[in-house]
Amino acid sequence: MQSITIRRPDDFHVHLRQGAMLRDVTIETARHFGRALVMPNTDPPVLNAGHVNAYREEILAAVPPGLSFEPLMTIKLTHATTPKIVRDARKAGAIAAKLYPEGVTTNSQEGVHDVRKLFPVLKAMEDCGMVLCVHGELPEAFCLQREREFLPKLDDIRRACPDLKMVLEHVTDAASLRWLDDRQDDNVAVTITVHHLLLTLDDVIGGSLKPHHFCKPVAKTNEDRLALLHAVLSGHAHCFLGTDSAPHAQAKKECAEGCAGIYSAPVALAALADIFDQNGLLHRLEYFTSTAGADFYGLPYNEGTVTLERRSFPVPRSYPGGVIPFLAGRTLPWKATD
Amino acid sequence: MQSITIRRPDDFHVHLRQGAMLRDVTIETARHFGRALVMPNTDPPVLNAGHVNAYREEILAAVPPGLSFEPLMTIKLTHATTPKIVRDARKAGAIAAKLYPEGVTTNSQEGVHDVRKLFPVLKAMEDCGMVLCVHGELPEAFCLQREREFLPKLDDIRRACPDLKMVLEHVTDAASLRWLDDRQDDNVAVTITVHHLLLTLDDVIGGSLKPHHFCKPVAKTNEDRLALLHAVLSGHAHCFLGTDSAPHAQAKKECAEGCAGIYSAPVALAALADIFDQNGLLHRLEYFTSTAGADFYGLPYNEGTVTLERRSFPVPRSYPGGVIPFLAGRTLPWKATD
Repeated sequence: MQSITIRRPDDFHVHLRQGAMLRDVTIETARHFGRALVMPNTDPPVLNAGHVNAYREEILAAVPPGLSFEPLMTIKLTHATTPKIVRDARKAGAIAAKLYPEGVTTNSQEGVHDVRKLFPVLKAMEDCGMVLCVHGELPEAFCLQREREFLPKLDDIRRACPDLKMVLEHVTDAASLRWLDDRQDDNVAVTITVHHLLLTLDDVIGGSLKPHHFCKPVAKTNEDRLALLHAVLSGHAHCFLGTDSAPHAQAKKECAEGCAGIYSAPVALAALADIFDQNGLLHRLEYFTSTAGADFYGLPYNEGTVTLERRSFPVPRSYPGGVIPFLAGRTLPWKATD
Repeated sequence: MQSITIRRPDDFHVHLRQGAMLRDVTIETARHFGRALVMPNTDPPVLNAGHVNAYREEILAAVPPGLSFEPLMTIKLTHATTPKIVRDARKAGAIAAKLYPEGVTTNSQEGVHDVRKLFPVLKAMEDCGMVLCVHGELPEAFCLQREREFLPKLDDIRRACPDLKMVLEHVTDAASLRWLDDRQDDNVAVTITVHHLLLTLDDVIGGSLKPHHFCKPVAKTNEDRLALLHAVLSGHAHCFLGTDSAPHAQAKKECAEGCAGIYSAPVALAALADIFDQNGLLHRLEYFTSTAGADFYGLPYNEGTVTLERRSFPVPRSYPGGVIPFLAGRTLPWKATD
């Protein structure tokens, strides 16, 4: 195939930031994605209906004219979140709330340290049809085992709120996928990023130190990567795209205490097309990018299409905002047309 | 104890670099160490007797007047090394030769890809009483398993050259120590760095990305760290200090492709005193720093002493050459006096 036209995709996990950075990066998501689930771990965070409305306005103001893009809004759960806050946020259009364990990633200092204390809030989410998105890492565990060691907490949540829809975000290891398959639970899904389909820990620390390959959860072994690839390429119904595209200015990455996050929005679809094409499965791309996630969230499919063409895409070395993108300087064999 | 005076230590693994960097950093080793085994992976590398003589001169010229410091010279093994090169280097005073597998660390591009091809050279080293120092990582293995997966190659060398003295440098994992103990071989020893007694992989990638904690082999799990600590504190006869102090300018660490290496020379003794003191074993410090290594190498003990005092040592945030030291900005409770 020289080109493939797919239904306009959704990105079910993206960081658009705020202010100048938001104005710089939103175009790269809005260009190719019909919708994106926008993470609430801004600074200050998105905690309630008022924040949701204000942040939605800020995002929409950053969408270039002519692009059709809908931000899917979220709130961040803290120990101050109440059932009323949840219900009000839902009325304001938030479709999900995000659980960050304390200290696991960017701006998670005031995250949750005891999931059980959230159960009344989670019940309210269950009642009003809000999805729980989880950064599933146990911060006190060894870095490579944080994800698998968090899984029992997800089981605790399942037992307390069996009808709550729950997404384990940006899974990186085979253990999480086994957990997903063992549960056979229609209310549980995972998102998978583009970079975790391509990187292992060797790409972060195995040669020189590569801050632009550093994210949380950190990339794991090649066996883990292959398990993710298998789930994505086999059309697993409960695995869908969440890029976790996370822009940081170059100076926040290339420094003594580098931020976690990979800015993949500009290359995500092209890189995915290459991955699916290399495996002779381009016809399955659309399911991963455009329908499996909408099905899980109970959203209509996007109108419109995106076309990917087999032509050289030299990835820019830098993007507005001074952000180094994933695969900077490489040339991809596929390109998404605007 | 408020102070401890020990025989002047040896550092059996240090990178002094060349040119301006060498002139900047040599003082920090010469200040407290009577001797140091100087690594030959400079650029260009130290490959033969001529290089040994020239490099020794360059190092000695960088030792400040009044300090008594002897560089212990090494050559780097490549596939171009011959038995004659080895014998000539030995005559020029080189006491060891270093084996870097191809591609494992700084300036190892032209390293060794087939250890067996080196056997004639290793036999010549065995004959003339030269020590083999090994960076024991299998480059094609997953980063955290490279060290343990290299161990069979060491057994190959043992079988071919049973009388060759061999040091497995900067060991980082429990498997290497088990290997050492299983062999019960008087001709085999390991060096242990200060930073591997203090760091795990969590300190590199577990929070923000810390390039100043990034070295090869990379720090492993806490279980591995505790195994190293146990060996050092128990006075293991075949474990001695090699700091692997490896200065890089700040810009070579805080960048898109950060160099591996931790500059520990300025803090090594103070940090060690703290480690031994915290475990109530200050009386064993001298064995690790000043006699176990000399015994293995068959060298006389150093003349002179170094005194460590229990007083506040605020580690500078930067050293001449623009190098960020290990533990920069921290305050250590022990300080080595000049």
